[in-house]
Amino acid sequence: MIRRIPPRSGIAVSVPRGAVLTVIDPEGGQVSDMFAVAAGDPAEVLSNGRTLDYEETLRLTTGARLWSNRSRVMLTITEDTAPHHDFLLTPCSEDTFRHFYPDKPVHRGCFGNLAEALAPHGVVPAMIGTAFNIFMNVPVAPDGRLAVLPPGTRPGDLIRLRAEMDLIVGLTACSAYASNGGSFKPIDFSVMLAEGAATG
Amino acid sequence: MIRRIPPRSGIAVSVPRGAVLTVIDPEGGQVSDMFAVAAGDPAEVLSNGRTLDYEETLRLTTGARLWSNRSRVMLTITEDTAPHHDFLLTPCSEDTFRHFYPDKPVHRGCFGNLAEALAPHGVVPAMIGTAFNIFMNVPVAPDGRLAVLPPGTRPGDLIRLRAEMDLIVGLTACSAYASNGGSFKPIDFSVMLAEGAATG
Repeated sequence: MIRRIPPRSGIAVSVPRGAVLTVIDPEGGQVSDMFAVAAGDPAEVLSNGRTLDYEETLRLTTGARLWSNRSRVMLTITEDTAPHHDFLLTPCSEDTFRHFYPDKPVHRGCFGNLAEALAPHGVVPAMIGTAFNIFMNVPVAPDGRLAVLPPGTRPGDLIRLRAEMDLIVGLTACSAYASNGGSFKPIDFSVMLAEGAATG
Repeated sequence: MIRRIPPRSGIAVSVPRGAVLTVIDPEGGQVSDMFAVAAGDPAEVLSNGRTLDYEETLRLTTGARLWSNRSRVMLTITEDTAPHHDFLLTPCSEDTFRHFYPDKPVHRGCFGNLAEALAPHGVVPAMIGTAFNIFMNVPVAPDGRLAVLPPGTRPGDLIRLRAEMDLIVGLTACSAYASNGGSFKPIDFSVMLAEGAATG
């Protein structure tokens, strides 16, 4: 079953070990911030630093693993049709709206959406670090400068990630202007259990 | 007063707002992992994701600010003679020793050293994310691949950081082989109060 995340919102979903989470950009050009915690232990969280350390690349695509702050593999990317993802930048938040868009209304952003969705699972905001920013386009210039460009995804582009441990996954349809080329669109996802039965 | 951190060890030091922390590579080719928390609130910690977001570059040098997970500026780099620093990779740890050096003795690494030094200040290990890896040489290839090369620092190279809030700073002389070109050397540091009086 494919579920839809409305624009500028977020959800949390249980993804048991062996299940495959599919995240789809239904219209193209939309980012989804993903943050994962170990089910039953919200102090074990997704870590960009551990992941970059062990995977030895910024270019995380099919075959790459996403690691926790305790050096355990949380997810493996099993399929990826998108041109890029980002694992450098934190979720947009009230603070980033004030910083980058001082003339626009403040929005709680992906950070606020993840914090609300993950709170019932015991996750405190201070533990929400850098999300894996699915479909986000953050090129690194030769001199190290970072840019945030519209995603190059086409409608239907997707990424599949297999859970390597029991997880609670927070997932958003991103709320920031720059990430999405100035528009806000939905994100679709599904969770397929190892046995082939859909859940969500 | 200049203090010395012996090879493969770490310390924690109070750095009040306005004070300048100087970190020196006395022999050249040595990395120092730095992690900062707000004095009195160990849930506010240094954030590589927030820093990369707001500074918009991987190349953090004079003028750059290091930000907390609550989007407040913790430190400003006021002087920098070193060719590079890294803010992508997590501190070396027992796990990274097992992963990267399976035939060498396991060491608790910078992570263990930071955890011990910061524990008296209320910092739990799960809150120690990516450190600012002073003098570390992590080039990013055009295809996104990361390498860990020996630091290009010469004896006496240094970085100065001004505290923009009251901080507890954890600082190490790094324990990993690759970061330091296979050798382990000390790190020197000083804390100069705003008034000009030295402390430590």
